[in-house]
Formats: sequence, structure tokens, C-alpha cells
Amino acid sequence: MPTFVQILDFIGTFAFAISGIRLASAKRFDWFGAYVVGLVTAIGGGTIRDILLGVTPGWMTNPIYMICTALALLWVILFGKYIIRLNNTFFIFDTIGLALFTVVGVGKSLSLGYPYWVAILMGCMTGAAGGVIRDVLINEIPLIFRKEIYAMACVIGGVFFWFTHLLGMDMVLVQLISGASVFLIRVFAVKYHICLPQLKGEEEDEHTKQ
Amino acid sequence: MPTFVQILDFIGTFAFAISGIRLASAKRFDWFGAYVVGLVTAIGGGTIRDILLGVTPGWMTNPIYMICTALALLWVILFGKYIIRLNNTFFIFDTIGLALFTVVGVGKSLSLGYPYWVAILMGCMTGAAGGVIRDVLINEIPLIFRKEIYAMACVIGGVFFWFTHLLGMDMVLVQLISGASVFLIRVFAVKYHICLPQLKGEEEDEHTKQ
Amino acid sequence: MPTFVQILDFIGTFAFAISGIRLASAKRFDWFGAYVVGLVTAIGGGTIRDILLGVTPGWMTNPIYMICTALALLWVILFGKYIIRLNNTFFIFDTIGLALFTVVGVGKSLSLGYPYWVAILMGCMTGAAGGVIRDVLINEIPLIFRKEIYAMACVIGGVFFWFTHLLGMDMVLVQLISGASVFLIRVFAVKYHICLPQLKGEEEDEHTKQ
Repeated sequence: MPTFVQILDFIGTFAFAISGIRLASAKRFDWFGAYVVGLVTAIGGGTIRDILLGVTPGWMTNPIYMICTALALLWVILFGKYIIRLNNTFFIFDTIGLALFTVVGVGKSLSLGYPYWVAILMGCMTGAAGGVIRDVLINEIPLIFRKEIYAMACVIGGVFFWFTHLLGMDMVLVQLISGASVFLIRVFAVKYHICLPQLKGEEEDEHTKQ
Repeated sequence: MPTFVQILDFIGTFAFAISGIRLASAKRFDWFGAYVVGLVTAIGGGTIRDILLGVTPGWMTNPIYMICTALALLWVILFGKYIIRLNNTFFIFDTIGLALFTVVGVGKSLSLGYPYWVAILMGCMTGAAGGVIRDVLINEIPLIFRKEIYAMACVIGGVFFWFTHLLGMDMVLVQLISGASVFLIRVFAVKYHICLPQLKGEEEDEHTKQ
Repeated sequence: MPTFVQILDFIGTFAFAISGIRLASAKRFDWFGAYVVGLVTAIGGGTIRDILLGVTPGWMTNPIYMICTALALLWVILFGKYIIRLNNTFFIFDTIGLALFTVVGVGKSLSLGYPYWVAILMGCMTGAAGGVIRDVLINEIPLIFRKEIYAMACVIGGVFFWFTHLLGMDMVLVQLISGASVFLIRVFAVKYHICLPQLKGEEEDEHTKQ
């Protein structure tokens, strides 16, 4: 029997893979390309985290992530045109994934003995880096660098993890509060179009461009 | 005296480096840039594999790959205009490289104790990931995501490795069958223009783009 | 009290982060995106080096690099329009960073027991790879592949490290000569517009593009 966290993990992986496969399909990738982009979106963040932490990436010990991405690809092939109607559903799933990946990333880093500021960074990376690699592979500027509160929700969720943990709360409660804060901040930011300020562009000269 | 496998490895590295250097030259890179792109094309796949497997990348223990890339650069500088006439030769060399890198990748992963599904993925990555990094560096959408059977040949070669190994065949025979299947599938696919189906593009909205 | 090397390290990190943040601002990134690009420019090269060498990246054990990037972001937000006037100053800082990162990279690789040709490569990577990742993230062809002597200065500085070390010089002197050579070659190359030759472009056909 899968646990509640495993079900959330599956939902998050599926939603992240769908987001990668949909963008790949907009670029007319073939099935293989779409699968790779979906897989990278789903596991990319966790893989970079695990390489930095010096442990074997989770997806190399459990085929569930590759199977889950294959199901996501099958879903898009079969029901592609119906997915647009489900946009709000996928937004919710995607945000569940973001929240869960953040909590998992923070928790794993702490359990390996890293300090809090590393753990918060790793939580943010687990949630957001997959999407950055996805955008690099489809040759676009990473969306999260220009739009919406996304990775910032992970950072704030990581800080909530830290504070509630410092207060001596039970670990289940810590994870719940941290994950819920990521989820709510993202939903709230999208609903009310809250963004970070942009930097003002400037003309570049050649010397400092290096 | 180099062994037969070492000669094939040299030919494959040379062909992969040539492919990177030629694409770099089409983008007007300087010699340094062309060398880096050639090197990354040749060793990129094996490097990602070795980092994921937690071992030191092979090219850090043997300068042959860097020397081989330097020879490839020298070749393009001296004989650039004659290379186009040799396209079919390079296609054969490139495919030999693909086949060999796949077999090496599967074998190395298995010898480190990883299960078959990881080994097949690693074989595919060894053969195809260098070309993906190359395309990212020259700011193009990775070609293997949109055209031809390329990485799929590696996957099928990996599956052949698995089956023939399960059947208890001698390891030399296993590697030969696996490598030959990669080679033949790729040659066959290019000759008869066999492609994977494309995903149908769809309009993207902003929320799910994350 | 910070040592002299720590002060140089801080200056180099700050200058590299500024270069990333300025390019991000030219692409209208938000504060978060600019911070990430600045951080990656500053620590990207050292991170790849440490992953390849199999050690924990330096910035995961000391928050100074993240703080330094935050200060660089604050600087650009507050004084953005004055930075252009300081271009020559930043060019000098950036080149100090390049020289220092190269020396650190070569020294760290040697102290871990790697041979000289690996150490020189790692020195070059420490100095130049951060800028390559930066350019990939802002979706541009990496500048160092097409313009100016940049990474080549690192390579030559690494060779100077090797020769002076072979001659039995004191390590402080070895590092000083190596770093000064990187600095002077870069300044000299920019002042006199010295470039590496470009490869002549050629038309590509589809088969070898793989």
C-alpha cells in the first residue's frame, strides 16, 4: 500500500512531467523528446540536489518516476486536446508537486547534516530547478526568472520549515505547515498577479559582458 | 598496443568531436569555442553518466579524449572543406561511436551493481547526452528531440544487451549483438527516413507553463 | 580578520555576480531571476569543478558567496545607472576574479592528487564555466566561445603554475606568477583586441548534424 506522501509524490511527478511534455509538444518534439523533457522536468531538481549533496539520485533506486513520466506521455498522446480544459486542475497538481518537492528537499538536506541555509536552497532547487532545465532544453529563457512568484514560494516555505522546527513542533506538523505555505503563496500570487519587481534593463558594453 | 575496443573508442570520440566542431564552426566560434564544443560532444554523455553513478569521469584519468579532440580540431582547421565530401564516412564513424558508447555505458553501470533499467538509461545517456549539451551550448533545440531515430537506437541496443545477457550468452557476444543492433537500427532508420511520431502542438496558457 | 586571498575571493565573486545580474537585467529578469543568474555566474565554475573532483562545493560550507551575491544584487538595484560609468573598474575586478579563480582551481585539483593536465583544465573551468552557464540561462550563445581571449588566459595561467612549480619555486610565488599571468594576458588581449582565429562556417547537412 502506498503511503499518503507517496501518492502526493506521484501526483507531483505526474503534474511536472505533464508540464514538460506539453511545452515539448508546443515545440513539435517527437515522443522520445517529449518523454525526456517530461522526465527532466520531474526529476531534474531532485537530481541536481542529490548530486550536490553527494548521494545517489532517488529516481535511480526506484523506477516509479520513469513509469510515471511514461503514463504522463501516454495521457498527453491520448487526451492532449482535453488537457487544456483541465488547466486549473493541473495548476493545482503542479502546485502540490512544488510544495511536496520543497518539503522533501529541505528534509533530505537536514537529515544529511547540512545547515538550514543550505537546506532551504536545496528545497527551492528541488522544486524549481527541473523547470529551469526544461526551459533550457526547449531553448527558452527560464520562465521562473521573469514571471510570477514560484521559486520564492519555495524559499518562504523553507523558512517556515526552519521556524516551526526551531519552535520544537512535531516533524509532521512542520512539514505540513511548510508545504501548505508553499501551496498557498503560489495560489495567492497567481490569483492576485503578484510579481517580484523587475530589474531595469541597461545597454551592455562589450568588456563587462564577460 | 591499443586493443580493438580502444581503437573503436578513439574513432567514436573523434567522430563525436568532429560533429561538435562542425556545428561550432557553422556558428562562427573561435578555435577555443570549437574545441570546447567538440570535447563536450565527445565526453559529455559519459561525464553525466559517471557523475550520476558516483565515479570519476573516464576522461579525467586518461588524456586520450582531450588529445583526440585536439586532433579533430586540427583536422577541421586543415581539411574543413573536404569534410563535406566525407559525410557518409563520418556518418558511419558517428554511428560506430554511438554503438560503442551505448555498450560501454550499459556495461559500466551493470558492473557497478545497478539494475538493468538504470543501465539501459545510462547507455542511452552515454550515447546521446553529449549531443544534447552540444546543442544547448550552440543555442539550438536539441536535434535528437525532433528528428530521426537516434537515442531510441541506444535504448533498443540496451534491451538487446539485457536479453542476450539473460540468455546466458558470453559477454563478448552480448556486447557485439548489442552494439550491432544500435548501429543497424540507426543506419536503417536514416536510410528509410523512419521517425518517431510527433506530439501535436497546442496553444499554451500561462498558468500551466510553469 | 579576512586574509588577503579571502578579500580577493570576495572581490572576484562580487564582480562575477555583477556581470550575471547586469546581463539578467538586460533581459528584464525579476529580482529572483537576477539573483540566480548572478549566483550561478559566481559559483557555477567552482561547482562543476568540485562535482567532477568528487568533493562538496565550497559555497555549501560557507554562506559568504550567497551573501556576496545578495550585496551585488542590492548594488545593481540601488546604483544600476552608475555602474556603466564604472565599467573599467568592473573589468579590473572581473579579471582579478578570473585570475584568482584559476589559481584556486589549479591548486585545489593538485592538492587532491590529480595530474597537471587535469588541474589546468579545472583552473580554466573554475574561471570560465560560470559565464557559460550564465549565457545558457539567458538563452545566448556563450560569449567566450566567440570573442576575446578569456578562457585561454586561464589555460596559459595554469601552464605558468605548472612550470614555476616544476622549477621548485615557493608556492606563494607560484600562485602569484600564475594569477598575474592570467590578469595581464586578459588585460593585454582586450586592450589590443587580440582574438583567436575563427573557424570558417560551412553548410551543414542533416546526417552529420547528429
